[in-house]
Amino acid sequence: MKNIIIAVDAMGGDHAPESILKGVALSAIRHPDASFIFFGQKDKIDKIVSFLPEIQGRYEIQHTDDVISMEEKPSIAIRQGKNSSMALAIDAVRDGLAHGVISAGNTGALMALSKLRLRMISGVERPSLASLWPTPFGECVVTDMGANITANSAELVNFAMMASEYARIIFDKKCPKVGLLNVGTEDIKGNDTLKEAALLLTETQKQYGFKYYGFVEGNDICAGTVDVVVTDGFTGNIALKTAEGVAKLIGSYLKGALQSTFISKMGAFMAQKALYQFKDKIDPRKVNGGVFLGLNGVAVKSHGGADDIAFAAALDLAIDLSKGQIIEAIKDRLTETQKLASA
Amino acid sequence: MKNIIIAVDAMGGDHAPESILKGVALSAIRHPDASFIFFGQKDKIDKIVSFLPEIQGRYEIQHTDDVISMEEKPSIAIRQGKNSSMALAIDAVRDGLAHGVISAGNTGALMALSKLRLRMISGVERPSLASLWPTPFGECVVTDMGANITANSAELVNFAMMASEYARIIFDKKCPKVGLLNVGTEDIKGNDTLKEAALLLTETQKQYGFKYYGFVEGNDICAGTVDVVVTDGFTGNIALKTAEGVAKLIGSYLKGALQSTFISKMGAFMAQKALYQFKDKIDPRKVNGGVFLGLNGVAVKSHGGADDIAFAAALDLAIDLSKGQIIEAIKDRLTETQKLASA
Repeated sequence: MKNIIIAVDAMGGDHAPESILKGVALSAIRHPDASFIFFGQKDKIDKIVSFLPEIQGRYEIQHTDDVISMEEKPSIAIRQGKNSSMALAIDAVRDGLAHGVISAGNTGALMALSKLRLRMISGVERPSLASLWPTPFGECVVTDMGANITANSAELVNFAMMASEYARIIFDKKCPKVGLLNVGTEDIKGNDTLKEAALLLTETQKQYGFKYYGFVEGNDICAGTVDVVVTDGFTGNIALKTAEGVAKLIGSYLKGALQSTFISKMGAFMAQKALYQFKDKIDPRKVNGGVFLGLNGVAVKSHGGADDIAFAAALDLAIDLSKGQIIEAIKDRLTETQKLASA
Repeated sequence: MKNIIIAVDAMGGDHAPESILKGVALSAIRHPDASFIFFGQKDKIDKIVSFLPEIQGRYEIQHTDDVISMEEKPSIAIRQGKNSSMALAIDAVRDGLAHGVISAGNTGALMALSKLRLRMISGVERPSLASLWPTPFGECVVTDMGANITANSAELVNFAMMASEYARIIFDKKCPKVGLLNVGTEDIKGNDTLKEAALLLTETQKQYGFKYYGFVEGNDICAGTVDVVVTDGFTGNIALKTAEGVAKLIGSYLKGALQSTFISKMGAFMAQKALYQFKDKIDPRKVNGGVFLGLNGVAVKSHGGADDIAFAAALDLAIDLSKGQIIEAIKDRLTETQKLASA
């Protein structure tokens, strides 16, 4: 088994470094072949890791005092954040010291710094943030979740290609089904960008190794209609946050209903094991972790408010993608396509 | 109490005319002051209404054989649908025979025909589809849900003004809080249209009688952060359908969990009353009904797949809006603003 090294921004996120390091310990149990480099304030990190036997002998610490705050503008982060825990963690991937980087810090800064320091894969113009959504059959990849506010048709096709390499690795599917998010499934629906992208996806599906399914609607995401849902970052972000809000509201309704009477409380007590399973299943922490596709290195963004369980889920993803060699898969696909085009 | 007459397209929707007429009967019990004109095939309607004592003496039937199919293109519906049940129901509002019209038929056709036959309120360029979303505190209005694929900043402000008149009537709030849907709450977030709209909303909030709250994110919709959420029709439609998909998936997870063991089934049986209340609370049928704001008449769109309960909810809305004189409220607001502008 290949030893995977992940560079961890120990200082990024609302509950750093504690949740970060505890999350690493949780994920470490599931991945005995992984080791870690923590970037951040050594004394703070030392205090916490000494209580985490799971990772003893499996980590090193690179000290830095600098931290990029959650509110920092990306432009400032680029200029002033050169020695931040986030930037140094990214550099570790660039310099070949780690296979992937993970941070729960400032999303805009992570994207800007990664783009600058890891550079884009040749043939990719813009990175795309991809995340996993639950479906009745498992999960699907949705991209872009907010790396770009807009996307033209060629960029959407690029997102589709990269996300299907992702789906191939994570779902072990040879030919992932790709859908384009729209307000209807008929050809006449949507704006010109989407209509153009639909044509391009139909033309290029073979060379990119996915099956273009057609337009899908918002309800298709959680229905598992396709393996990959492609959209621009504005729409993707709204869909994701709306879904989070709906899940939260439904959870509170259920809690309220079950606590309404003595009998319902008794019933809930009897069904508690099932209700825990349910809670576990809709737990957004379990599908935490967005991947910036298109960068010359694995860069995973955890939710800023992630606790240890959520951070561990994102770290699992970073490890799986590093093992699955997603960067190489995207590069190979692009090289092959360019060869075909020039032949 | 003012007698409200609603023109009902009895032939529109997947389960017409049965669900439509049964839905009318359900709503009629709740609104003793309402009466109805049914447009459609008289023999089919007669057969069903004879079994509905709730509406005896409270309806008349306008016979027509023509029906606009769910797949018909709006352009064809305009040319060939002049004598359709939908067009004639709309005409009843235009001609002052009814206070509002409701249809579960083809959305595009309903919008196109209504725009053509009712015309727009002077000062409004494009209609906006508004619907109610559940929150912990009740409901909020979200618009546009798909009447327009795009919207410029002035149109978004227009949507906000109309939706806040809607919120004022439905929620009985003097000064509704309006939020603009975006991918973040900071001023720098989003595209130029949203930034412009934010400035315009700040400037015009006073004259339009709402409080501009600022940018809101997807999770704010169901959190009840504001009374009115404004967005373009593309984003609104994606958010709505995504929410439906999430709710459906969560419902199936819960069902699966509660049926997993004998003990959990027993627990669920004991808590069944609470679980029914819960089911009722997240029942999308209870918030059925989109209103086309900006038309010179109340036009409500019910979901095409609506059963009687869902159709009744949409009809409740049509009656409430007709009573609340939403068209007059929007007109008055615009007249006042124009006076101020020319003063």
